[in-house]
Amino acid sequence: MQSNPPKVVTLLTDFGLKDHYAGVVKGRILQELYGYPYPLFIDLSHEIPPQDVKKAALLLKFSYKYFPEGTIFLCIVDPGVGTERRALLLKTEKFSFVGPDNGLFTFILRESQTSEAFEILKEKLLSFPYSATFHGRDLFAPAVALLLKSESIEDWTRVISKESLLQLDFPEPEPVSSGFRLSIWYVDHFGNLITNWEKTFTERPFRVFVNKKEVRLVKTYGDGKEGEVIALFGSEGLLEIAIPNSSAIQKLGLPEITISF
Amino acid sequence: MQSNPPKVVTLLTDFGLKDHYAGVVKGRILQELYGYPYPLFIDLSHEIPPQDVKKAALLLKFSYKYFPEGTIFLCIVDPGVGTERRALLLKTEKFSFVGPDNGLFTFILRESQTSEAFEILKEKLLSFPYSATFHGRDLFAPAVALLLKSESIEDWTRVISKESLLQLDFPEPEPVSSGFRLSIWYVDHFGNLITNWEKTFTERPFRVFVNKKEVRLVKTYGDGKEGEVIALFGSEGLLEIAIPNSSAIQKLGLPEITISF
Amino acid sequence: MQSNPPKVVTLLTDFGLKDHYAGVVKGRILQELYGYPYPLFIDLSHEIPPQDVKKAALLLKFSYKYFPEGTIFLCIVDPGVGTERRALLLKTEKFSFVGPDNGLFTFILRESQTSEAFEILKEKLLSFPYSATFHGRDLFAPAVALLLKSESIEDWTRVISKESLLQLDFPEPEPVSSGFRLSIWYVDHFGNLITNWEKTFTERPFRVFVNKKEVRLVKTYGDGKEGEVIALFGSEGLLEIAIPNSSAIQKLGLPEITISF
Repeated sequence: MQSNPPKVVTLLTDFGLKDHYAGVVKGRILQELYGYPYPLFIDLSHEIPPQDVKKAALLLKFSYKYFPEGTIFLCIVDPGVGTERRALLLKTEKFSFVGPDNGLFTFILRESQTSEAFEILKEKLLSFPYSATFHGRDLFAPAVALLLKSESIEDWTRVISKESLLQLDFPEPEPVSSGFRLSIWYVDHFGNLITNWEKTFTERPFRVFVNKKEVRLVKTYGDGKEGEVIALFGSEGLLEIAIPNSSAIQKLGLPEITISF
Repeated sequence: MQSNPPKVVTLLTDFGLKDHYAGVVKGRILQELYGYPYPLFIDLSHEIPPQDVKKAALLLKFSYKYFPEGTIFLCIVDPGVGTERRALLLKTEKFSFVGPDNGLFTFILRESQTSEAFEILKEKLLSFPYSATFHGRDLFAPAVALLLKSESIEDWTRVISKESLLQLDFPEPEPVSSGFRLSIWYVDHFGNLITNWEKTFTERPFRVFVNKKEVRLVKTYGDGKEGEVIALFGSEGLLEIAIPNSSAIQKLGLPEITISF
Repeated sequence: MQSNPPKVVTLLTDFGLKDHYAGVVKGRILQELYGYPYPLFIDLSHEIPPQDVKKAALLLKFSYKYFPEGTIFLCIVDPGVGTERRALLLKTEKFSFVGPDNGLFTFILRESQTSEAFEILKEKLLSFPYSATFHGRDLFAPAVALLLKSESIEDWTRVISKESLLQLDFPEPEPVSSGFRLSIWYVDHFGNLITNWEKTFTERPFRVFVNKKEVRLVKTYGDGKEGEVIALFGSEGLLEIAIPNSSAIQKLGLPEITISF
């Protein structure tokens, strides 16, 4: 046992892995920490499609609760960088979230009753020469370093109301005559189509239709036959459409998905 | 010198880098370790083509012996996730390997005489609510955390015979009238075609033919001319076909490769 | 505060993320360090286009000064691997750079007056069996491990003159009748076109033309309209051409860019 394990900093960005941006953000955090213990960096993804705040918000929802208490999530998908959009620090009972106020934290706000929101004061943290286009390096990295140093946040943030935070609209399942029409929230790397129907919505049995054709609701990918379109509850508790050993998005595009009771 | 360097956990998956899967597996390991020392994570690759167990097995063969003693290799390319396929812990003199029983560890078994095999008991490690489709997070990550805590494995594994493990078939060079016809085992990121002919097979001189045309056997890429098809022993001791400053797979596809004495 | 934070090793290669090469280089460093403290690895990029030394040199220029003092930069874009090209250790006041002598460190040499250059002696570090094609694993990784152990470099390097190092040619802005014609040095992941015009070149006001059509010079991406071609000084202090929420390289290709006073 060690008394002080390093803190965890989890990164979620649209910087991609071709350029230096993600590495430089980490470098800057370490540079600011010089003399203090370094954190453990975990990359959640840097391959969010450029400026796709919605995808980042979902991916964060799918991930944050699996990290150790005290984890700092640095989330930078930031089409409004350098404009008047606010920079945020959001604290829940267990975690801290740092990033722009553009809806990235929509699900964190929904799922945590006790969160507190703070605006990061740019004028306190941006030091000359700073860039108007790379707040990841020049604003958010110094903020994360200050959190890691456990310095009082009062000097560089101000309390704001949670109600004032920008939130994104994620569609609910739409009631139709026989049941619900679902939306596809996310397509993962395997090509599985992840919908907005949560396992916890009902305990009643139901049937799943893809482009009006019924598909089997199974437990796991291996329960389907090669090439068969199947439905199952995936790792995030959401109903998904998959094709074993193949890619549903490639074979089906974005099909109509409905359920009926 | 430090008395207790962190243990190394090396990851090899087909999760890709677009989604959260690889990051969440690490998060879950750290969450389970809360209060214990954290490991050093090294990503071997997360870009194994989806469900390509053969490629993962080769990549592991090319890599494991360069890691420090005590390294835990977490390997998840798992088309059978959630079915009856067994979850494995394989221990060699120097290393531990964790992953599904689907042939991923074919070369580890071949190259280590003294390995011991254990089945990871799902009923001991899967804790509610768990997913049938993401054993990386819900089964293998907790297993790795238990290994890192150095807890007795008897409580959550049972000994199994090595002979019962699934192994993949990798073709040997095929004898033909004048010598051998080779297979291409692996195409790397530079487009080099890596064959199944090992440097240690012979000390006799031999000639190499690509689509029946002889090519020069050289020492290193720089020994070839721009655009010349060359053969050389690559970094894994296997004969490979390359084109300096170009991509052999793009120029040649998958050609016939033979050697003769 | 901790007395001895880990040293930072930053990696910049063209190995890609599909293969095992980057992971194996890290594994080998850790293997050589067995018993010594491990470093903190930061990936700058492994997605340099194969053998694109120029792009790597620029990316290194954009990054190195944001890392903590003492950082070791391991840079491997190495078309000449296994030939007579020298292996280098370059030390500046704050940093160490390790990699082949092929121009990778062009900007480090330009920007540091006090750097010292050393040739890494292959015969001292390559241990049998080594590969002629993977010096990242067999030569540079052991060199980095020796640096991390703080062992005297005299045993495995020799001083060489900085003037003898290979340097790359990066074009300066070209004077034309009305001002300057710029070159595009770098295209980033967002598709922004980064030119060779530095913010520090002038304080005089100037106008920017893309394919002879004037574009607005703004402060940040959000100052442009959807679809508008804009110019701004990017995060590295270089003039760049961008299209808000879109990709300039996709819309414009590599246009003619000029400025006039």
